[in-house]
Amino acid sequence: MTTLKIDLNSDIGESFGRYKLGHDEEILKYISSANIACGFHAGDPSVMKNTVKKAIENGVKIGAHPGYNDLQGFGRRSINYTPQEVYDMLLYQIGALYAFTKSQNTTLRHIKPHGALYNDIYKNYDKGDKSLAEAVASAIKDFDENLIAVMLAGTKVIEYWQSLGLKVAGEVFADRAYTPDGKLVPRSQKGAVIHDEKEVVKRVLQMVEKKQITAIDGSIIKQIEFDTICLHGDTKGAVELAQKIHNALKDANIKIIPMLS
Amino acid sequence: MTTLKIDLNSDIGESFGRYKLGHDEEILKYISSANIACGFHAGDPSVMKNTVKKAIENGVKIGAHPGYNDLQGFGRRSINYTPQEVYDMLLYQIGALYAFTKSQNTTLRHIKPHGALYNDIYKNYDKGDKSLAEAVASAIKDFDENLIAVMLAGTKVIEYWQSLGLKVAGEVFADRAYTPDGKLVPRSQKGAVIHDEKEVVKRVLQMVEKKQITAIDGSIIKQIEFDTICLHGDTKGAVELAQKIHNALKDANIKIIPMLS
Amino acid sequence: MTTLKIDLNSDIGESFGRYKLGHDEEILKYISSANIACGFHAGDPSVMKNTVKKAIENGVKIGAHPGYNDLQGFGRRSINYTPQEVYDMLLYQIGALYAFTKSQNTTLRHIKPHGALYNDIYKNYDKGDKSLAEAVASAIKDFDENLIAVMLAGTKVIEYWQSLGLKVAGEVFADRAYTPDGKLVPRSQKGAVIHDEKEVVKRVLQMVEKKQITAIDGSIIKQIEFDTICLHGDTKGAVELAQKIHNALKDANIKIIPMLS
Amino acid sequence: MTTLKIDLNSDIGESFGRYKLGHDEEILKYISSANIACGFHAGDPSVMKNTVKKAIENGVKIGAHPGYNDLQGFGRRSINYTPQEVYDMLLYQIGALYAFTKSQNTTLRHIKPHGALYNDIYKNYDKGDKSLAEAVASAIKDFDENLIAVMLAGTKVIEYWQSLGLKVAGEVFADRAYTPDGKLVPRSQKGAVIHDEKEVVKRVLQMVEKKQITAIDGSIIKQIEFDTICLHGDTKGAVELAQKIHNALKDANIKIIPMLS
Repeated sequence: MTTLKIDLNSDIGESFGRYKLGHDEEILKYISSANIACGFHAGDPSVMKNTVKKAIENGVKIGAHPGYNDLQGFGRRSINYTPQEVYDMLLYQIGALYAFTKSQNTTLRHIKPHGALYNDIYKNYDKGDKSLAEAVASAIKDFDENLIAVMLAGTKVIEYWQSLGLKVAGEVFADRAYTPDGKLVPRSQKGAVIHDEKEVVKRVLQMVEKKQITAIDGSIIKQIEFDTICLHGDTKGAVELAQKIHNALKDANIKIIPMLS
Repeated sequence: MTTLKIDLNSDIGESFGRYKLGHDEEILKYISSANIACGFHAGDPSVMKNTVKKAIENGVKIGAHPGYNDLQGFGRRSINYTPQEVYDMLLYQIGALYAFTKSQNTTLRHIKPHGALYNDIYKNYDKGDKSLAEAVASAIKDFDENLIAVMLAGTKVIEYWQSLGLKVAGEVFADRAYTPDGKLVPRSQKGAVIHDEKEVVKRVLQMVEKKQITAIDGSIIKQIEFDTICLHGDTKGAVELAQKIHNALKDANIKIIPMLS
Repeated sequence: MTTLKIDLNSDIGESFGRYKLGHDEEILKYISSANIACGFHAGDPSVMKNTVKKAIENGVKIGAHPGYNDLQGFGRRSINYTPQEVYDMLLYQIGALYAFTKSQNTTLRHIKPHGALYNDIYKNYDKGDKSLAEAVASAIKDFDENLIAVMLAGTKVIEYWQSLGLKVAGEVFADRAYTPDGKLVPRSQKGAVIHDEKEVVKRVLQMVEKKQITAIDGSIIKQIEFDTICLHGDTKGAVELAQKIHNALKDANIKIIPMLS
Repeated sequence: MTTLKIDLNSDIGESFGRYKLGHDEEILKYISSANIACGFHAGDPSVMKNTVKKAIENGVKIGAHPGYNDLQGFGRRSINYTPQEVYDMLLYQIGALYAFTKSQNTTLRHIKPHGALYNDIYKNYDKGDKSLAEAVASAIKDFDENLIAVMLAGTKVIEYWQSLGLKVAGEVFADRAYTPDGKLVPRSQKGAVIHDEKEVVKRVLQMVEKKQITAIDGSIIKQIEFDTICLHGDTKGAVELAQKIHNALKDANIKIIPMLS
């Protein structure tokens, strides 16, 4: 019998100047991959350096978490950039974070687009417009073809990216509800976020052990392949939930290791 | 008889969005090292990518030109950052530019601090405060110890940086007047900038052939060692002057090659 | 016989820090209303103050030209703000420009939304979403109900704004081609901008004297009511064109006076 | 016997986008004057509007709290602006906040410069450079000569501003230690901030009832005239301290009313 394994990722390094956000030091104890903001939608150079340092101290693998250039909107507002502009701003942000990994003798391992950029990639692709997905894949590959791109599990853009030679990790969300066809229930809809800790832990175990997700209508989604589970680091009770998920996985003999390893 | 050689450098890539500055495409024909702005005092990701591309096309070596985070002030206002903050923002900017060199299969070769940062480094050092100079040296070395740091020729910080194991290129200015003790005449003073093209060309030849600079009072400065001459790329007549300097050096059998090569 | 009259407006004050844009001092000689950028998509506090000063010196009426908060994109990228956020950022920008009019003892007379904001207002309205148009109208009225709002002539949002009690001036463009149904030919389409100076002057006279515009297919658009003609201030030949239009109107005994006066 | 009175002021509206700072809703219950950030060192248009609304609901008078344009540094880094640039950026910020007071039918009553700007004004003045103080006074007066300027009690710039015809309110700090000659003990020095709540309350009563401050060496400072006491809104225990000070003043029959009223 093979040991089950899963990656836990979280978006961290989202503080800015005097503004503090999240519970990075606590969350880092429970995850295996950290997505670090790169100064466009959150984070600043000093936050980035310190966050890389803390990730290293916790043995957590480091990824860049680039976003749209919109600190006030936290990268959650869609902005009508050209694909070429997105390519350019991704390279900029990836390089900026890379500098903090290189100067601290560690490796940049993955890239997870943030917020509206993340959503626009798969939504545009589903509408038939590949240009944004192509630009993002090119930026990642042109910087380093060994980087892993993180994208929403179950979306078609994952296969497209793989066809371009990109390593891709599918991502599911521990505390988000899914529609029967495997999409995230929009945050604007009731029940989109699951607040019951026990329920979230149960769902995580179901995801990893049975490769299934129970949809919001009670049906079972079977077709979702994924490589990493996202834990939120800034919601109320985030630290406790991360700890419980971490411990439940350990208790079930599931290894928490970096994505695609 | 050995052939004389000199590096010509210029600050380019200073446009931002719709705002155009300088004559990069023309200047690149005449220089051997380009200092490319990194998005803090000038430049944006798209400008950076395109400027790296143009430098490659012209066979010009690429350096980062990081500055204070002040687009409105063009990095020319002194800002009371801590040395640690400067270390962080240098790594950020160096990494950002590095991404555009790496993705275009070329090399980042040197770092030239911009504007108020450039001045604060040697002025603080001369006042006995080494902390800024130390932070800048560390940022450069921690990213890549093979990078060359560019600093004002004749300043004591150059020896300090060399003592830290940093490769340093001393810089003189083709069109700036010098005091008898080898310092730049402040821009606020009359005669600080030399506008007579013939005079500038003559001074450049004197610098390279005789290792001398004639000071504003007519005396000869002999003690200045330097490795690169800065040409301004955005002043009136900048392109014509660059061309004349370039041609005069060629006519004098002086090779124009990258600094410290 | 009554004397014909028309307002000529232009977007000015679009420089930022060291970056210069447009030919404000020249253009101001030929227009009667100036739309001054407010620091979000272009302009900075010093540019704003100086532009207000120059407008006063030329006897030109002053309006605010607020835009999306996107200097790199020059306010031309659509950003998914909530209507409430747009309301807030409009008040902010209007107040900022107002400070420079108040401190120079003059009056803020009109508001012309810029770029993507301008377009989103009437395009969203045409799609049945009034929320952005409503937010913009509220911001203007809540600051000062005597302010005039400038909007694209022929759009339905003009009547909507009037129904809310707002004073509205319809705007046509001197050098832009129109579709037969009175819409602007998109810039991406060939012939969208008319470069022939004589043709532009002829069209302006036709607009003012006959209240007609010849569409790109040669048909005559008769239903467009308008109060002001926009002259571009930053295109090649902008100053000469402005002068020619100004002179042609004068020669035809048409008074150039502020909108709705 | 006349009733004693004092103004309590606090810096609020310092949140930005998703970043929350301070306890504005609670603090507003205990103060009489609110200094609202204007988007340069903290705050954004939406935060500003909502903060003005909350101040009105609590019957608290509104002032602008303009600062240097440095969100990352929270306006606490000195930046080498020209006095003219400071004049311009003050007008911009004052106008921006004014828009939210005007649109909500209330009045802008005072201006309190923030952070490094506040400090630079009196420190430069003490060094013999009046230019910054003059620029700030002009900006305030040129916008509205009825505005009250808030400045550190005991500084010479207060008299200078009064000689220029400006209304000035001297400010003391409830929880900060003073040197025997009436200056603030620098934050870098031990004991600069007084954390003992009872001690702070006692000092406030001493300030208002006896017009005295006990210096850090135990001596009594008698020469300080002041009109308002600053309460910090974002430190640990800030709300409880504000409440205690508020209640202690009420219990001592001291009226808490807006400065200079």
